[in-house]
Amino acid sequence: MENETIRERYGPWALIAGASEGLGAAFAHAAAARGLNTVLVARRGDALEGVAAEIRAEHEVATRQVVADLSEVDAPLLIATALSDLEIGMLIVNAASEPQGPFLDLPLAKHLFAIDVNCRAPLALAHHFGQEMVARKRGSIVLVTSLGGLCGLPLFSSYGASKAFGWNLGECLWDELKPHDVDALSFVVGSTRTPNLERSGAPETHLRDAVAPQIVAENLFEVLDGGPTQYSQPEVEEAADRLFKISRQEAVGFFSEQNHATFPSKAN
Amino acid sequence: MENETIRERYGPWALIAGASEGLGAAFAHAAAARGLNTVLVARRGDALEGVAAEIRAEHEVATRQVVADLSEVDAPLLIATALSDLEIGMLIVNAASEPQGPFLDLPLAKHLFAIDVNCRAPLALAHHFGQEMVARKRGSIVLVTSLGGLCGLPLFSSYGASKAFGWNLGECLWDELKPHDVDALSFVVGSTRTPNLERSGAPETHLRDAVAPQIVAENLFEVLDGGPTQYSQPEVEEAADRLFKISRQEAVGFFSEQNHATFPSKAN
Repeated sequence: MENETIRERYGPWALIAGASEGLGAAFAHAAAARGLNTVLVARRGDALEGVAAEIRAEHEVATRQVVADLSEVDAPLLIATALSDLEIGMLIVNAASEPQGPFLDLPLAKHLFAIDVNCRAPLALAHHFGQEMVARKRGSIVLVTSLGGLCGLPLFSSYGASKAFGWNLGECLWDELKPHDVDALSFVVGSTRTPNLERSGAPETHLRDAVAPQIVAENLFEVLDGGPTQYSQPEVEEAADRLFKISRQEAVGFFSEQNHATFPSKAN
Repeated sequence: MENETIRERYGPWALIAGASEGLGAAFAHAAAARGLNTVLVARRGDALEGVAAEIRAEHEVATRQVVADLSEVDAPLLIATALSDLEIGMLIVNAASEPQGPFLDLPLAKHLFAIDVNCRAPLALAHHFGQEMVARKRGSIVLVTSLGGLCGLPLFSSYGASKAFGWNLGECLWDELKPHDVDALSFVVGSTRTPNLERSGAPETHLRDAVAPQIVAENLFEVLDGGPTQYSQPEVEEAADRLFKISRQEAVGFFSEQNHATFPSKAN
């Protein structure tokens, strides 16, 4: 989409949930580069201040930071209240919790935390800001999901399941909000070189093949009105196409083999 | 699987969550017909008593009922505690909440309730009983999901998303629990003539085409060790194969058209 039209089409402010580093920070930069003011949401206020300072130094836009823990049930209300004076034209939900390890070895609390952050919070944010967008008849909702939502994801059980949740929900919103001139989509991301990936224990060869967050973020802005599911790169779309066409057993087996080869399987 | 081997292979008791009517009651009958004692879990104690009485009248098995509201965060613990003296060899999670209507027209609370019942409770039950099964090196976990988990499901947004969650999770459990001699799977069900469907406002022609719960339940017991995803009938598998092969836009469009033609779109 043309840069000028994004702000006109959706509105002046972009909210990025999960913006303290990595992909979220890259989405915020990409939004600011297109003239959108940015609201940055995450748990760590100091990290948010750092990203906001960079954005203001590089782009002529305003920023606002909201410190919120998306695992908490009242976080979406807290965010909505803090932003009641702004027109949020874009909502990009990037925050995610990724408990790593065999399902039964991880404490239940970590899985429930992932459901809260990865399912409940995105749904609640989309519900609140979606209402405002529909009332204005403009807006964009992006649920960032993962290729790992395509089928069972060994070693990342609740992450994979919750990414399947978001993928499905974003597609539904695309259909339901289209008649209201609001663009929604699920944005499927492959292996991206984020601080999260660097902390995962993946070997250097894997990190080297992972795509830079800036590339993923730039690509998002090309496909905002493109349909229910869009992919961060052609390679991710090709992988998805392949996985949809093989049996579920083969697809799960592919991820099982890959994840056991890449990530330490000890719960952490 | 041979009837004799099910009890030997998995253990003497089957727990069915969401057993007060429809498909859950049918799963309980099918388990009892194979000599498994049944634990019935649901919110409505009187309905559970009725199903239990039928099962005891028809089959030589013991039954136990646990009244629990799976939307409550402590329900899995309550169930686990009530059953600490039993060997649960099969866990069939069938309970589901299906808020019906456009995403933004439904109150947020209904969507969050669906996440609690459809995502959090199945995960927590699988986590608890999965530990016990792995310790005994035998057991079966069945997460009942829906064809509507395959892609965005207009008019059933949070139901579809949460069924995608369960579908993905069951597949992961299949892979992770296999080495421990525990069979897990996602069981994908199509349109089934349940009381839920009859309350949905679907027209008589649609109800007539829906499959009887008894058929779906019998078919489950044929495929318990069959792999990560199994389908309730060949027609459901064929539909899934078709939907996986077309574009996401076409797949969502298919459900959108079908659901708008079948279900009243007013939120309820």
